[in-house]
Amino acid sequence: MTKGALALLIHGGTDNWSPQRWKARFDDVCGDRPVVLLPDAGLDPADVHYAAVWKPAPGELAGFPNLRVIFNLGAGVDALMADKTLPQVPLVRVAVDDLTARMTEYVVLHVLMHHRQELYLRESQRVKRWAPKYQWPAAAINVGILGLGTLGLDAADVLKRLGFQVAGWSRSEKQADGIESFHGAAQLDAFLARTDILVSLLPLTPDTTGILDRKMFTKLRRSSPLGAPVMINAGRGRLQNEPDILSCLDDGTLGAVSLDVFGREPLPADSPFWTHPKVVLTPHNAADTDADAISRYVAEQIATFEAGGALRNLVDRVRGY
Amino acid sequence: MTKGALALLIHGGTDNWSPQRWKARFDDVCGDRPVVLLPDAGLDPADVHYAAVWKPAPGELAGFPNLRVIFNLGAGVDALMADKTLPQVPLVRVAVDDLTARMTEYVVLHVLMHHRQELYLRESQRVKRWAPKYQWPAAAINVGILGLGTLGLDAADVLKRLGFQVAGWSRSEKQADGIESFHGAAQLDAFLARTDILVSLLPLTPDTTGILDRKMFTKLRRSSPLGAPVMINAGRGRLQNEPDILSCLDDGTLGAVSLDVFGREPLPADSPFWTHPKVVLTPHNAADTDADAISRYVAEQIATFEAGGALRNLVDRVRGY
Ligand SMILES: NC(=O)c1ccc[n+]([C@@H]2O[C@H](COP(=O)([O-])OP(=O)(O)OC[C@H]3O[C@@H](n4cnc5c(N)ncnc54)[C@H](OP(=O)(O)O)[C@@H]3O)[C@@H](O)[C@H]2O)c1
Ligand SMILES: NC(=O)c1ccc[n+]([C@@H]2O[C@H](COP(=O)([O-])OP(=O)(O)OC[C@H]3O[C@@H](n4cnc5c(N)ncnc54)[C@H](OP(=O)(O)O)[C@@H]3O)[C@@H](O)[C@H]2O)c1
Repeated sequence: MTKGALALLIHGGTDNWSPQRWKARFDDVCGDRPVVLLPDAGLDPADVHYAAVWKPAPGELAGFPNLRVIFNLGAGVDALMADKTLPQVPLVRVAVDDLTARMTEYVVLHVLMHHRQELYLRESQRVKRWAPKYQWPAAAINVGILGLGTLGLDAADVLKRLGFQVAGWSRSEKQADGIESFHGAAQLDAFLARTDILVSLLPLTPDTTGILDRKMFTKLRRSSPLGAPVMINAGRGRLQNEPDILSCLDDGTLGAVSLDVFGREPLPADSPFWTHPKVVLTPHNAADTDADAISRYVAEQIATFEAGGALRNLVDRVRGY
Repeated sequence: MTKGALALLIHGGTDNWSPQRWKARFDDVCGDRPVVLLPDAGLDPADVHYAAVWKPAPGELAGFPNLRVIFNLGAGVDALMADKTLPQVPLVRVAVDDLTARMTEYVVLHVLMHHRQELYLRESQRVKRWAPKYQWPAAAINVGILGLGTLGLDAADVLKRLGFQVAGWSRSEKQADGIESFHGAAQLDAFLARTDILVSLLPLTPDTTGILDRKMFTKLRRSSPLGAPVMINAGRGRLQNEPDILSCLDDGTLGAVSLDVFGREPLPADSPFWTHPKVVLTPHNAADTDADAISRYVAEQIATFEAGGALRNLVDRVRGY
């Protein structure tokens, strides 16, 4: 082969993750570089220089002696991190404007739904009750974003424009105009104490697993104008303690939640989340992956890399994101 | 009296329109100017220089010989315009950041709800169906705002930031960065032909009464990525032809609507809007009136006016808004 091949290894099951669709997009953007769909019995593993993957099984990426870079086709690398045999080459995650914009749509929609009393208003419509309740302006509501990275910062920016008081929590301190930055374990409680609507956009790592639990929810602002604080999780399901969410909704520690992600997906039919009146549930579609934007992003990074430039959005394997 | 009195004349019936609450706010901001709640039998009508009103009955404002300015306590003056005995003094409407921000919240929420398939997703939750449908990015959706005034321009700005393709239609041409401006009757059809989500923020005037009708809805973009176009009305109820909306929802000319306003409010219990599966209904609370912000606005305008300055946001009685 003239150029080292790009191997695609995609497990998904949904339309969005059809391996054939991804191959067609990569063929479009890779010029004369061979694009191979794995598994491929005829392929010489030594020809593979790059891999672009979504949820490969543990071990599937071992055995390519000349692999140079792995591209994860989504923002979250938690599934990859679980693979102890993952080759020790640079690992790149997705950070593209298309994905970011979609997540911002989701976050802004769900913050506004809770802020604007949508659960109450839909119930009012159902029972034919014309009874507006006092509506606070956004300026009276504190939104707190767990994870002020690529996604969190963009959502924060639009929420600020809408008038919300926005703060974020991350590992390192951030400078973002008009957004209060909290960082590290030591500042978590202060961040929670001022938060009415908590938005989780954290990656799933050993440090963050199960972080959305009763201990955290009880620390949110008790005097929230919304009555009780609200939690929105669009990060990963295993960030959340699901029994804690249910019991906190039932005892009033939380007023409502929006959940896009769950410990088990698809959510089992017997999950109490489906029917809970304070749960707004979406089927892990907060930010759909667009094969067009992401294949272009990977092709551009390969071109930069081969020209001697630096890869962007590298995963730090020690931090786990 | 030392200073000409400010007379308050407020009919509302809801908490937001409690005359006593408004008087307390005006007392706070009017310094030594007397604030009088009408009707007041002891008042000499000649003492009244200013009136601040919400839905006065026809004739109630006649008979104040020294009246200088009428302040309407909301953005829409349609109720006042119907009063043929209204004194021929300057008439000022509300345009304050607090009200504008609240309306932008409403518009952004309802545009996002329809864009993000909330009707489908809530029904999915109800029937425990984990089945994401393809989600277009905002960049693929054309939002069209009827009425690109104080409210329309601000909502347009946030929708643009979210990635939507935004256009507006007004009487006069507008220059707003990144927003396509259509104006006048001659450009209405071109505006409608590119619109997937139609947002009405028009004032109610003889020219706009009943404008939201089947003729208009059939001109919206038929190839909308949303399936069928969507209409959101937060202007006034009498802008809309209600039988047309229902029949257009039923024959697929419209995919869904959000309605904050109705020809009769409160909406009668036998209205088919309550139970229609494609209707998202709110009880005229898109932009609550905040007595704090608005009493300050009126007091500031009076101070400017008495210092010889110009009144802002004057109503043009010929145009009717
Ligand atoms: N539901 C969906 O459809 C969907 C779609 C895309 C992504 N996601 C999820 O969203 C996550 C975030 O994506 P992103 O692109 O914004 O990632 P990112 O740019 O890496 O941002 C992650 C943020 O979390 C912070 N963080 C990580 N571990 C932390 C810890 N232990 N304590 C405090 N802060 C910590 C990081 O802090 P520093 O800035 O200090 O490093 C950073 O601000 C992804 O990992 C993925 O799981 C979900
Ligand atoms: N639902 C609620 O809670 C609520 C709350 C507040 C207000 N409102 C409604 O919202 C309306 C708009 O408020 P606003 O402060 O944005 O008013 P505004 O600043 O006066 O804007 C009105 C807009 O409509 C346009 N327009 C008026 N008549 C037109 C016609 N015949 N053809 C084309 N364009 C026309 C105007 O065009 P030009 O710019 O060329 O003049 C202007 O762009 C109010 O009148 C009120 O009815 C509803």
